[in-house]
Amino acid sequence: MNEADLLARLRSLPLHEAARGLADDAAVLGSAEGALVLTHDMIAEGVHFLSADPPESVAWKLLAVNLSDLAAKGASPIGVLVGQALSGDAAWDAAFTDELGRALAQLDCTLLGGDTVTLPGGAPRMFGLTAIGRAGPAGAPSRAGARSGDALYVTGTIGDAGAGLELLREGRDGPPRLIAAYRRPMPLIADGRALAPLVTAMMDVSDGLLIDAGRMAAASGLAIGIDLDRIPLSHDFVAHAGDDRPARLSAATAGDDYQLLFAAPEDEEWPVPVTRIGRFHDGAGLMLEDRMGHVPLPERLGWEHAGAT
Amino acid sequence: MNEADLLARLRSLPLHEAARGLADDAAVLGSAEGALVLTHDMIAEGVHFLSADPPESVAWKLLAVNLSDLAAKGASPIGVLVGQALSGDAAWDAAFTDELGRALAQLDCTLLGGDTVTLPGGAPRMFGLTAIGRAGPAGAPSRAGARSGDALYVTGTIGDAGAGLELLREGRDGPPRLIAAYRRPMPLIADGRALAPLVTAMMDVSDGLLIDAGRMAAASGLAIGIDLDRIPLSHDFVAHAGDDRPARLSAATAGDDYQLLFAAPEDEEWPVPVTRIGRFHDGAGLMLEDRMGHVPLPERLGWEHAGAT
Repeated sequence: MNEADLLARLRSLPLHEAARGLADDAAVLGSAEGALVLTHDMIAEGVHFLSADPPESVAWKLLAVNLSDLAAKGASPIGVLVGQALSGDAAWDAAFTDELGRALAQLDCTLLGGDTVTLPGGAPRMFGLTAIGRAGPAGAPSRAGARSGDALYVTGTIGDAGAGLELLREGRDGPPRLIAAYRRPMPLIADGRALAPLVTAMMDVSDGLLIDAGRMAAASGLAIGIDLDRIPLSHDFVAHAGDDRPARLSAATAGDDYQLLFAAPEDEEWPVPVTRIGRFHDGAGLMLEDRMGHVPLPERLGWEHAGAT
Repeated sequence: MNEADLLARLRSLPLHEAARGLADDAAVLGSAEGALVLTHDMIAEGVHFLSADPPESVAWKLLAVNLSDLAAKGASPIGVLVGQALSGDAAWDAAFTDELGRALAQLDCTLLGGDTVTLPGGAPRMFGLTAIGRAGPAGAPSRAGARSGDALYVTGTIGDAGAGLELLREGRDGPPRLIAAYRRPMPLIADGRALAPLVTAMMDVSDGLLIDAGRMAAASGLAIGIDLDRIPLSHDFVAHAGDDRPARLSAATAGDDYQLLFAAPEDEEWPVPVTRIGRFHDGAGLMLEDRMGHVPLPERLGWEHAGAT
């Protein structure tokens, strides 16, 4: 059984209406102003982070990736419950916890509770975090609400974290901002809150722009066309990887961006900087193009795990 | 760093008021009718369950121990978020998930969301669950509210699960009800709801009656005296282990009971069957007695991990 099989099986369990069929970034409890948004992500050593990653980076990411799911629903964080496994390395564990505290303070969040467990020796480090937030007055946009003719927008730049991970894996030097994008992604809470009332669908880019955009289109029952040339790349990314078709495809499939991806009627006025990169159409599937014309889809659109609520 | 050190460190993090200083079974968000009660527990193979435990038992316990924390706050379950690690044994994982669904249905709960992760080969199985419930009109009793002169009460019988675990560990035959008490504890949701308006403090017995009663007394700033002879034992427990002082001490320190332990003014009328086993006094510490007189405290009062919210 892989994660997609498991997700299918979980969908047959007694689901709360708030679970949105386990097809969204988060559960949304209540529908009026003040609805609660709940999300839970686990991270494991060797899967979601490298064994050599410093504890500060792991703690930051654990919190940031969950708050990013809240941001994608336009929610403001209330607090988190943390499941922390003790690794037997006291200095590592202490540094993790201290950084979690700094991250909570910096991201205007608090600790609500949690659990600790002492793992058997040699077991990989593993953490779980449940984040709870409050949706804005317009409610929490789903990823299933895009309409035919809507444009697809994304915040920030894409591919920086993927390039940072590549540098770390290969032990190479490179622009510090790329490594920081991988190790210390910033959940876009304020951006999500500002955008939520204006969008028809929103999610965060965690597994890769292409796979995530395809999921939004599929959830909305639509096709999506993306202009690869419009995908916003940072100066550092271009300096590191270039901006030809292969570089752009690598950025669009790398994941870990934690930018906000949203569908909305085309507009020139947005409360935060965004880039229009595609358009939704009747039909199904993902089509890519650039200035050279049609772009064949790469074999791998992003991280193919089951996704998380 | 052990779990108690970690808990002390976590208490220095930015805590939400709802976290109750990380000194309760659950966080309580809001104080009027309808307050939300949130709790998160992790369970790991080799720590909280045996490698040979059937997946059905593990799934049931994961849900039941969290709902027991809600029961101790007089809350009714709304739903859960589940972190499930895939073990590589598809039949095991599928049986776990299917049983989780049956348990949710049986315990009148639903799935809100969660996350899945594929563990590296050989890693111990590990699960996390966040349960969310709604408190009753009287709010959620803390474990810190006992008053001097209050009696200490417990529901049900104590020691059955511990005896069941002993039978399983030793591969011996024994009363099926003892094994069921270990493998399929029943969260006392209805009892908790009925008792919550009547108590000054309440918690569930998860780590052992003595250690948990001592925690309630310490949180309340009081001493507690317990009459070992009054601790309610089941017929099966007595048939298996006897009811002399060592047997009673073993029951009172075994843990995994998931009965409700509460402080309240002495009364003869309770909405559910309960047994009075002790009394709170000014002072500090835990005193034990039985018909023979003072009972020296055993070296181990229960499971000494840090506790969980």
